[in-house]
This record gives sequence, C-alpha cells and structure tokens, in this order.
Amino acid sequence: MTDPTSTIAAIATPPGMGGIAVIRLSGAQALPVADKLFTSPSGKKLSGQKAGTVHFGSIACGGEAIDEVLATVLRAPASYTGEDTVEISCHGSTYVQQQILRALVDCGAQLAQPGEFTMRAFLNGKIDLAQAEAVGDLIASGTHAMHRVAMQQMRGGYSAEVKALREKLLHFASMLELELDFADEDASFADREELRELLREILQSIAKLTDSFAAGNAIKKGIPVVIAGSPNVGKSTLLNALLNDEKALVSDVAGTTRDAIEDTVTLGGTLFRLIDTAGIRSGAGDVERLGIERTYQKLGQAQIVLLVLDATLTADKLQSDVRHFLQKTAEGQTLVALLNKADRTGDAELAEKLALLRPLCGLLAISAKNKTGMAALEQELRRLAAIPDNLDGSIVCNLRHYEAFVGARQALSRALDGLNSRLSEELIAFEIREATQRLADVTGEIADTDVLNNIFAKFCIGK
Amino acid sequence: MTDPTSTIAAIATPPGMGGIAVIRLSGAQALPVADKLFTSPSGKKLSGQKAGTVHFGSIACGGEAIDEVLATVLRAPASYTGEDTVEISCHGSTYVQQQILRALVDCGAQLAQPGEFTMRAFLNGKIDLAQAEAVGDLIASGTHAMHRVAMQQMRGGYSAEVKALREKLLHFASMLELELDFADEDASFADREELRELLREILQSIAKLTDSFAAGNAIKKGIPVVIAGSPNVGKSTLLNALLNDEKALVSDVAGTTRDAIEDTVTLGGTLFRLIDTAGIRSGAGDVERLGIERTYQKLGQAQIVLLVLDATLTADKLQSDVRHFLQKTAEGQTLVALLNKADRTGDAELAEKLALLRPLCGLLAISAKNKTGMAALEQELRRLAAIPDNLDGSIVCNLRHYEAFVGARQALSRALDGLNSRLSEELIAFEIREATQRLADVTGEIADTDVLNNIFAKFCIGK
Repeated sequence: MTDPTSTIAAIATPPGMGGIAVIRLSGAQALPVADKLFTSPSGKKLSGQKAGTVHFGSIACGGEAIDEVLATVLRAPASYTGEDTVEISCHGSTYVQQQILRALVDCGAQLAQPGEFTMRAFLNGKIDLAQAEAVGDLIASGTHAMHRVAMQQMRGGYSAEVKALREKLLHFASMLELELDFADEDASFADREELRELLREILQSIAKLTDSFAAGNAIKKGIPVVIAGSPNVGKSTLLNALLNDEKALVSDVAGTTRDAIEDTVTLGGTLFRLIDTAGIRSGAGDVERLGIERTYQKLGQAQIVLLVLDATLTADKLQSDVRHFLQKTAEGQTLVALLNKADRTGDAELAEKLALLRPLCGLLAISAKNKTGMAALEQELRRLAAIPDNLDGSIVCNLRHYEAFVGARQALSRALDGLNSRLSEELIAFEIREATQRLADVTGEIADTDVLNNIFAKFCIGK
Repeated sequence: MTDPTSTIAAIATPPGMGGIAVIRLSGAQALPVADKLFTSPSGKKLSGQKAGTVHFGSIACGGEAIDEVLATVLRAPASYTGEDTVEISCHGSTYVQQQILRALVDCGAQLAQPGEFTMRAFLNGKIDLAQAEAVGDLIASGTHAMHRVAMQQMRGGYSAEVKALREKLLHFASMLELELDFADEDASFADREELRELLREILQSIAKLTDSFAAGNAIKKGIPVVIAGSPNVGKSTLLNALLNDEKALVSDVAGTTRDAIEDTVTLGGTLFRLIDTAGIRSGAGDVERLGIERTYQKLGQAQIVLLVLDATLTADKLQSDVRHFLQKTAEGQTLVALLNKADRTGDAELAEKLALLRPLCGLLAISAKNKTGMAALEQELRRLAAIPDNLDGSIVCNLRHYEAFVGARQALSRALDGLNSRLSEELIAFEIREATQRLADVTGEIADTDVLNNIFAKFCIGK
C-alpha cells in the first residue's frame, strides 16, 4: 500500500464508458491538489468551500481543458476515508477519466491501490476490519441473501458482540495474571466459578457464530447441489437445463462426464453451486473409476443431492438405486430423486413408479431434455435452500472470521478444560489471551500489515 | 422518449461492478421520490436541503436497507438537465445498483431512455443540439484530438457563429419578404449589393466549416491509410505489425487477401484507419480481379497511401511500381513507399535502391516480419496525419452538421446566383429561408421529434 500520509486518487466507478464517472481523491492534500486543476466560474477555490457541498467547474491541465465536472468537497473526519476528500464527477469517457487521473497524479496525488480508500477508513477508525471486509462483500453481492448479510455486517453486525466478548475475556485474563503476581500471598481475585460460567457463555456465543458459517458460506458461495446418478441418465442435460447454457458436455455415450463440473446459478434470488459428476456404475474402466471415486467425494460436499434416475428402468432397479444413494447421503443432506425421461414412459407406468418411490425420499418427474418439470424442481431447490428470509441474526460468511472464531473457541475450550482440571493460572490466562487475540483478528484491533494487504488486495480499485 | 414532465432515473456510471456507482434522478418529483427512500441520520428530508449539498444516509425500500449512500441535491435550473436532480452515490455492486433503481421506479420514477438526461438539458435550453451531440462525442472520444474537438463544441464551438449567421439571414429574408408585400409600391428595403456581400461572407464562413469536415471526420473516424502494393510483398504482415494482432490473414500464397480489411489504431494519440487491400498484379483470376478493382477504389479514400514494395526486386521494377502508384494517387493524398523485406538484401544494394527511389516520394526501409523500421514508420504516419496541435478553430466532425452546412451552402449559392441573374425576391427569400432552416438544424432551434430521438438513441443510458 501507498504511504498512509499520501493523497491518493483513483477512478471509483466501474471501468469503461458511461454517462458519468467519479474520480476520488483522498488525503491531507486532496483539496490543494484538486485546486491546481479545478476552476469554478466564480473563481472560488475548493479549499475555500464548505464540507458537503458540490461545485460546478472545469478541470484543466497545462492550459488545456479536460472536462466540465461537478466536484464534491468532504472534510476529515466526515468522509468515507476519514480524510479530506474530493470526488470529481466527470463525463464517462475513458479518455477523460484517464486524463483527469493523470492530471491529479501530475499534481501530487498517488495512484490508489485496490481497496486503499477502505483500508484508510479502517486505519482512521471509521470502520473496523470486519466492516471493511463487508464493504467488499457488499460490492460483490449478487443475491438478496448475500446483500443482506453484507449490509448487516457493514453496519456493525457481530463487531460489537465480538468486542464485548473480548473485553470480558481481557478483564478475566488480567485478573488471573494479577493473581499470579501475588501467588505467594495466596490471593484469589478471579472467581473460578464465575470464570467458568463466563467461558461457557462466551463459548456458546462463539459457537452460534461458527455454526452460522455453513449458512453464510452457502449464501456467499452458493448452496452446494450435487447432481448424481448412474451413467447416461441425463445428469449433464439436467445441469444444462438449470444453467441454460451448453457448458457441460452432453453425449449419448455412457460415461462421458469424467470431471466434476461446477457452476453457479441464481434461482429466485438464491445462489446455488451445481456440481455435475461422473455417472456411477459398476465395471467401469480405470479413468472412469477415478471419476466415480470423485463423485462419492463430491456427494459429501452437497447440501442437496439431486439423484437423476431413468424413468424407463424397472421399478425394482429404481428402488434399489434410490436406496443405494440414500445410504451414501449423510445427516443434514437432502436427497431428491428426479425421474428423468418421464416423457418416455406411459402415464400409468410413471404414476406407479412415482407411488413406489415417494415414501423413500423427495421426488419429481422431469424431462431435462424437453425442460418439463423444471419449474417444480427450481421451486423445490429454493424450498430446500432454506436460507431464512429473516437474517437478522449475525451470520458469518467470511472464511477468515470463521477460522478466527474456531481458533477462539478451541482456546477457550482448552481454558475451560484447564479450569476443570485445576491447571495453573498461567496456562489458563495464556489460553484466554490467545482467544482474545483471535477475536481481535476479526475486527482488526491488532492487524498485521500482510493480513491487511491481503484483505484489501481483493477489493476493486477506487474503493 | 418518456413524457418530458415525468421524473426519470438511470444508472449513470458505466455498467458493471466498481467501488461506487451513481444513480441519477431528474424531474419535478426528483426530491419527493428520493425522500421516499432516503433517510439521513438527522432525519432531515432531502427536499428540505439546499441546492449543491451532499448528504449521507441510507436507502431502504419496504423496510429493508439497500445501501448507505451519499445523495447530492441539485435544483432547477442549476443542474445538468435544468430540472431538480438527485444523484445517489452508492456502493458499486450491480445488485445494489439494480435494487436502488427498482426502488426509485417503485416510488414513481420512470426508467430513463438512452441520452434522455442530455435531451432534457437541450429541451430545457441548457445547451443547444450541437452541444448535446458534442456530449456524446466527448464520452466516446478516445484520442486527444477527438476529445479536444468535442470539448470545444460542448462549450459552444460554432454554435454562436451559426446563430449569428442565421440571424443575419433571417433579417434579410424578412426584408425581402416585406418588399414583396409592398411590391406594388416598388419599395426596395433590402439593399441588393449589401445582400450580395452578406451572402458571400456567409458562404465563406460556411465553406470554412464544411472544409473542416475532412479533418474533423479523420479525427473522429481515423485518418484513412491504405496499404497498397503488388501481391505477396507483405501488406498484411505490415498491417498486423501496426495493429499488433493477427486480424489480417497472412500467407505466402500470392493473392491471399481478397477483401479489404479495416481496423483502427491509435499512434501517439492520433487515430488511424488502416485499410489493407488485395495485392495488385496483372493476369489475376476473376475473384482476385474484383479485389484489385476494390483496391483502386480504396486508394481514393486514402489520405495516406503506404505502398509496400519488395526490396529484393530489381531497381527498375521498384521504380516502375512507384511511378504506377504515383499516377493513381490524387491531389491531397500522400504516398509513402516502404521497402519491405529490407533484411533480405545487402546493405549496399538497399542503399542504392533507396537512393534511386528517394527523389520520387516519401521512403522508408522496413521489415514488417521482423518489425524493424516500425518506429520510423509510426513517426512518419503521425507527421503526415498533420492534425494541427492547435485546434482552436471550429472543426466539424458531425456528419449531420456537415450535411446541414452543405445544404445551407447550396441554398445560399442558389440565392446568390438568383441575385446575380435578378431573380424574383420571392425565390431568393425562399432560398435564404431554406439556408436558415438548415443552419437551425445544426443547433436544433426547430427540431423534429424523430431527429431528436435518432440523435439521443445513440447515447448511453444515464447520460
């Protein structure tokens, strides 16, 4: 990242041509730098203008007019970064955008790195690190659920809770350490029972957060749906029908799909990660056996397993296939059997097979090829996705946070075990300190430069 | 276009994801519509805020928070459109942008058509039609020269001149018509000699503008460069070397390039339109002969002809090829001979051939294949492009304006002829009215709805 005392500039709007574009300038020299380029009809300098005001004028460099713009003046600390900021709204020509940016750099601004404005907002105490990361998530959000989770976290989310837990733990850790200093006097400041109770409470709070990660991750990355079934039952055709494109290789030769193919699709505002797999059959060749092996592995990642069946097979075969896959399905996973090629069986025969299988699992008759029954399938997927409409609780969707919470939970479990087995205060205090450190990681109270760079490098330029 | 009394909204920044995006809302209801969605921490409504101020707050719809934004309040007539305007600067998530736009529409805004904000600026008298078109040109500008021409026109350009010419003509047309009304009394209000002088002056002014179109069009569309030469001398290889890609088909079989290939390239800030042509040779087959025919046609469009020669040919053959093409080159066109495959001849031989050809035309030794001599060629192209650095005069780069000026010139020429041949006042006045109408077309004093729709449809949405 750039020297934090520098004044940085970047095109903040999406790249390309549009009606208007915004170039953001932030830092102690933002107003003087802008004044070198900006002339208002009244001749008044931007540095003489009030915070929160907008001014029409022209941007010129080396005597040549670049554009007519609106310049917004914001002043520290009441700006996104917490620094003096000028936002220049210019015509959305890529040429004009580049020229203004270049002129700002010529006048002393530095080109901002990706995420550097948000990093400054964090460094200047405007937001904590979890909120800063939520800004990135908000910008990347493509579904209602993800947007909601990101908005919640950007507005504070579990930050306050984490801070409160951390303070309680810090208090007890210092009590324990104080006790150590006075060990000779056999003083006992920290109430052991109270500490045990506190640790249990905190563990419960953290467990709630870590437990929410399954839902949070599904919201962020998509709910994993594995499409399974014997070879040549139409798994890839189903994937294509759901994705509406021709990504998966579809062929009539049994065993065509060897690698698992993944893609995401948004159905009714919910993101799904669809995983096509190699068909499963016995007596397959070596390469294919590898694919089948991988299918069983993939099954483990699924929240929903769509078992594709060929409706033209015998009722017995269908029943045994469903039973086989039900065995492979773990707790927390839902299996939905899809009687595919439903158009190729008689109505009576289809009804009979459906009646036979219905007691075993979720069931739908479809024709992936003719795209019949797809609306019912999409509805069923959305129902099973079960992302609560009411996401008012705190949901962790950030892997870094999840790992930090898991680390804190482990340290606190060790501390609790230590308390129960009457371990030394020193070791217990160490574990509690470890837990507070992991909680601090989430909100970035003590953040390593590498960690920060890594987090903000994933942002877009201009944010 | 939407009903001009409606309040319109659009995403004004380039499409896609970025740090921030701006949604523009304009019309009589802009502030009330924004107030339905926007809440500031102080609770103060945007409609109660002063013009030219920026306010932090949140956008919510149906009880659900969509984003935290900055809202800029502008009031009629001091805004781009001349109407009350709210610009909402939100996080650059495509989802957030869409949600805010949808919420604005739910609250009574109409989706803006392409160019509708600029059309309103025109309809509300903020800018004339030529300036409005220049906004589109400015946004599309990709080179220094085009940017400069568009900026000039956006800031007024020849609008004032056209208006003044038009007023002078209108004055004389009414004088002539008055004379008609009093024809019986043999009155003569319009001084014929003065009118003749005025028409000559105006014709001269308009001729200056129409003459500038060659330069204006070259700036906008690129300076036409035809790459000509016999088959298999390396024309397509040269095109590729200039374009740095593999668009042109390059092969060792003589006569491979049958269709003229066109592409633009910016060299040192100047846009060139490079036209590759079929090789020219005698005794070619039918299809190829067609290509050769087209080459000669293409030659006529060129401002610069790059004649590619095979340096390994005899001095006599080279000399006769150059002479042949010099004959095909018209006045105002520049021919530059390129001794290609220069790496395949001895230094002494090359020097001899260069000395022989130098008196005939511009000359460079290159190897398109090895990309040697390309820097000198690019420099020569830029020199020949001769787009004046000082573009302070008015340059017409808009075909619609050019056609209007040509129409005005023709009408005025007819009027002048009529004056000289003592034609009736009625016919002269008709021609002068025709000329004023054509001049009015440029600035849009009297603009047809279809013409307007056609002009603004080419704009991007949000401008």
